[in-house]
Amino acid sequence: MDRELSNKLSPILSRRSIRSYQDKEISNELIDALLHAGMAAPSACAKDPWRFIVIRDKAMLGTVCEKLPNGTMLARAALGVVVCGDLNAAHSNQLSYMLQDCSACIENILITAPLLGLGAVWLGIHPRQERIDHLRKVLSLPHAIIPVSAIAIGYPDEHKAPRSRYDEGYVHNEKW
Amino acid sequence: MDRELSNKLSPILSRRSIRSYQDKEISNELIDALLHAGMAAPSACAKDPWRFIVIRDKAMLGTVCEKLPNGTMLARAALGVVVCGDLNAAHSNQLSYMLQDCSACIENILITAPLLGLGAVWLGIHPRQERIDHLRKVLSLPHAIIPVSAIAIGYPDEHKAPRSRYDEGYVHNEKW
Repeated sequence: MDRELSNKLSPILSRRSIRSYQDKEISNELIDALLHAGMAAPSACAKDPWRFIVIRDKAMLGTVCEKLPNGTMLARAALGVVVCGDLNAAHSNQLSYMLQDCSACIENILITAPLLGLGAVWLGIHPRQERIDHLRKVLSLPHAIIPVSAIAIGYPDEHKAPRSRYDEGYVHNEKW
Repeated sequence: MDRELSNKLSPILSRRSIRSYQDKEISNELIDALLHAGMAAPSACAKDPWRFIVIRDKAMLGTVCEKLPNGTMLARAALGVVVCGDLNAAHSNQLSYMLQDCSACIENILITAPLLGLGAVWLGIHPRQERIDHLRKVLSLPHAIIPVSAIAIGYPDEHKAPRSRYDEGYVHNEKW
């Protein structure tokens, strides 16, 4: 890819998982921008089944990540956003659509973070039942609300160079 | 959101589903850029289970969309990218992770399209069994390869103004 093209796509190509954060709060304006970006994702039949738990409280962040292996950095993040899906709101009440819609929404938030000077990482919850049960309990989630992932967000305290995971072996032309 | 912030996030906030295309080919360089963007998405345990069928042939595009309701514009698109997941490659062979990873990848491609002057729309395949079976047959997909969505892409022949689907009712603080 030539340099001009690669610069143009930099928000997408240079996204990396950021797991180390400065001890610095994130303004409500930026949190609002992250949520706007999340809700700008497409969803099946425009059902927008995403729901958000915005967590700033350090004790709650620590509690949430107790059952998230590899998610301990959440306790040191300025912000956690747990993205949930409402199965009752999803197109045809299908889990598949709910997961697809929420994942597009999560990716929008991940791409937006560095545009705001922030770093973020996607911490998986679904389909691990023990994580779902834990989040349901500590966040008081209603039955139809399924936590899909937690996003840890903060001002980055690490720099990661862009890298490509492009694999031409994954690309087929016209048919498999 | 103030204007400066909103401009900064414009690639994400102004994305719209584009369903009408000019009769103009897309260069291999741009197709390559779209695929690089897709593969820059995060995936559970970096398993990168996404696989791509890149379709330029008009007859094949027409065949693919035969079983995609609301997907007839694919026959008039310059390009179709069918994003599939390899269930054998996905983290813990979990369909949920495979869907989440592929959806983040699809969203990257959708956001990249307008940065390249292109327009795109996400056409749902999974979990509709009749669509999966049709795609499996016409694209000769192996058993573990599950088509998640088809993306129709072309130079836009319609303009859609940005719109916000932000809903503050979807946002909860600290807990539900």
